[in-house]
Formats: sequence, C-alpha cells, structure tokens
Amino acid sequence: MNTVSPFKTADQKKAERAAKRDAVLLAAVRMFNERGFHATSLDDVAASLGISKRTIYHYLANKDQVLLECVTIGLNQLLEAAAEASREPGTGRDRLAKFLRRYAEINMEDFGRCVIRTGEETLSPASIPQYRQLKRGIDNAMRERIAEAVADGSIAPVDVKIAAFTLAGALNWPARWHNPDGPMTREEISAAMVDLLMQGLLPSA
Amino acid sequence: MNTVSPFKTADQKKAERAAKRDAVLLAAVRMFNERGFHATSLDDVAASLGISKRTIYHYLANKDQVLLECVTIGLNQLLEAAAEASREPGTGRDRLAKFLRRYAEINMEDFGRCVIRTGEETLSPASIPQYRQLKRGIDNAMRERIAEAVADGSIAPVDVKIAAFTLAGALNWPARWHNPDGPMTREEISAAMVDLLMQGLLPSA
Repeated sequence: MNTVSPFKTADQKKAERAAKRDAVLLAAVRMFNERGFHATSLDDVAASLGISKRTIYHYLANKDQVLLECVTIGLNQLLEAAAEASREPGTGRDRLAKFLRRYAEINMEDFGRCVIRTGEETLSPASIPQYRQLKRGIDNAMRERIAEAVADGSIAPVDVKIAAFTLAGALNWPARWHNPDGPMTREEISAAMVDLLMQGLLPSA
Repeated sequence: MNTVSPFKTADQKKAERAAKRDAVLLAAVRMFNERGFHATSLDDVAASLGISKRTIYHYLANKDQVLLECVTIGLNQLLEAAAEASREPGTGRDRLAKFLRRYAEINMEDFGRCVIRTGEETLSPASIPQYRQLKRGIDNAMRERIAEAVADGSIAPVDVKIAAFTLAGALNWPARWHNPDGPMTREEISAAMVDLLMQGLLPSA
C-alpha cells in the first residue's frame, strides 16, 4: 500500500498554484511577444495551455494584470542583474560590462523581450506607477555603474545620463531583432555588442 | 478689381490636396506617438484638425493606411540621410558618423519616432512587405557605411551585422525617451550619443 498521503499539504498546494500561474504567464508572454498584446486574447492563451479562460481567472484578474505581471518579472530580472553586477570584483568598468552583458541577455529572453516590446501606452493607467518605479530602478543602477567607472578612472568622463540611455538603447534593441534560431547564442551576441560599446569604433591601435 | 483668377489651376489644386493630406498625416503621427496607434481613432485625428472623419477619407483610405504612410515618410527620411552621408568627403568613419548623427535626429522627429514606436505587428499584413523593404534599405545602408570604414582602415574590423544592430538600437531608443522640452536640442543629444558610440568607454588616454 502506498503510504504517500493523497491529500496535499498547504505548501504543496501553494507551490502548485504558483507553478500554474507561472505557466499561464509564460504562455501569455510568448504570445504577446509573437503577436502583440492587442492581438492576443486570454482565450488564445488558455487554448495554448489546454485550459479554459475561466481557469486563468483563478490566477490572474484580467489581461492587463497578465501584462503587468509579465513586465514586472522581466524588470525584476534586470534589477537582479544590476544587484549581482554591483557585487563583482574588479574595476567599475568591469562591473559595468558585466551588468551590460546580462542586461542584453535578459532582453533576448521571454520576459525581458516583453519589457522592451511593451510601450507604456499599452499598460493600463493603474499599472503605470509600478512599471515606472521598476524602470527607474534599472536606469538608476545603469547610471550608478557608469558613474562608478568614471569615478575610479576605469572609463573617461562621460555624460552619465546620455551614456545610460545610449547603452540601454543598444542593448534593448535585440528584443526586437533577435532570432533564437539564429547562428549565435544569446551570450555570444551580448558579448559582441558589449565589446563594441566598450571599445568604440576606432582605428586599429 | 482683383485680377487674380478665383479659379484654381490644376497645379494649385494638386498642391492644396497634398498640403491637406500632409496635415492629416502630421496630426495623426503626433497622436500615434502620444497615445499609441490602438488608442487613436481617426475621429480624434479629424477633431484635432477641426474636420470630419469623412474629410480624412478624401485623402486616406483608413487608419491602417494612415499608419503605413506615416511610417513610410519616416523610413524615407532615414534613407535620404543615408544617401546624403554616402556623398560626404572624408574617411569612411566620417561618413558613418555623419549618417548616425542624422539617423538619431530623425528618430527624435515626428515621423521617425513613429517608425521606431511602431512594431511590425501593428501594421496590417498588406503593409508589411513595403515596410520591410524600406527597413532593409536602411539596414543595408548602415552596414555599407560600417564596411566601408573597416575597408579604408578608419575603424578596426568589427562584425558588421552586430555593429549595425548595436548602433541602430542605441540611436533608435531616443524615439522612446526623448523629451522635446528637455534642456538639450536634438542635435546636441545626437552628437553626444554618436561621440560615445565612436569613442567607446575606455580609460582616458
């Protein structure tokens, strides 16, 4: 006789619920990235998981909340990358490069792509404050890494704000053009882009 | 007695028609950039010009065509900038920098902003071939300028494709963050960004 209880513990139930919610978000983010938010319905998302839209409503209130959750996951991944990079050894320039590489990689992953492909105008007005706050955190982290590299002399002085926008823009763009079936891995693309940004376009030394 | 004929010549009528169509496109592109394509109706565009939606239909077939025309104007401005830069004197690196500066400026102007803010998924399927062809022209022009600078030794060898995407991404991004009421002009922002991309983030020499 099987001695495993057929009744789930509270922890098991919680974990299952979280796993189901995550599966909904992953299916949704992939459709948003592929078709666009407006062209995706929760019926489509549900169908791709073999469930009904009513089941989705056990986990998420509506399509706007699904989008906000997807964007929030991506933004939190970027914030985590910033925190990790800030703890790296080496110069300020090393920590900046580390952050930039991971930043670009995330923008080629499902939730990061959604962050970049979602303009603020697509979010519901109620979602915007949370979105802006997370974005600001990432922008501040980028500026901190640049300012630190200038301060320790590992890069020459620059306009920190312009530099942050320039680097972020370059590394956001793969969210639009990256093809996961292409010949280079995300890590290779990211490393090549960050090298180029750090080295500039100068004659051979 | 006024000797000017009250009857318009065919040329005058054509010019007036073009001016009215342009005014519709400019009003539309500003609303698309501000609110997003989906949140803008042709009724709103018409109202902003003090005309009726029926009047818009004298010039443009529907909202999808309005968007395609707006994006096409922006893409043609970028293609023109590429052609102009290719005729500049100096090294390949000079011509590349010239193109990049103008490219960034256009992306901070009305129609260029719309190009960047409009994902392919927003266009109607019928519009996509024309859009892709123009985009490809700009991407090819960017790659040509980079390859030419590598060929004449004014920049060190790079992966031309990756470099084109990196530069384009950095200089597309102002379409999302640029504030026309900010302290720097478009030309100043563009010059600072292009300097940074050309110089890289290196220690002071």
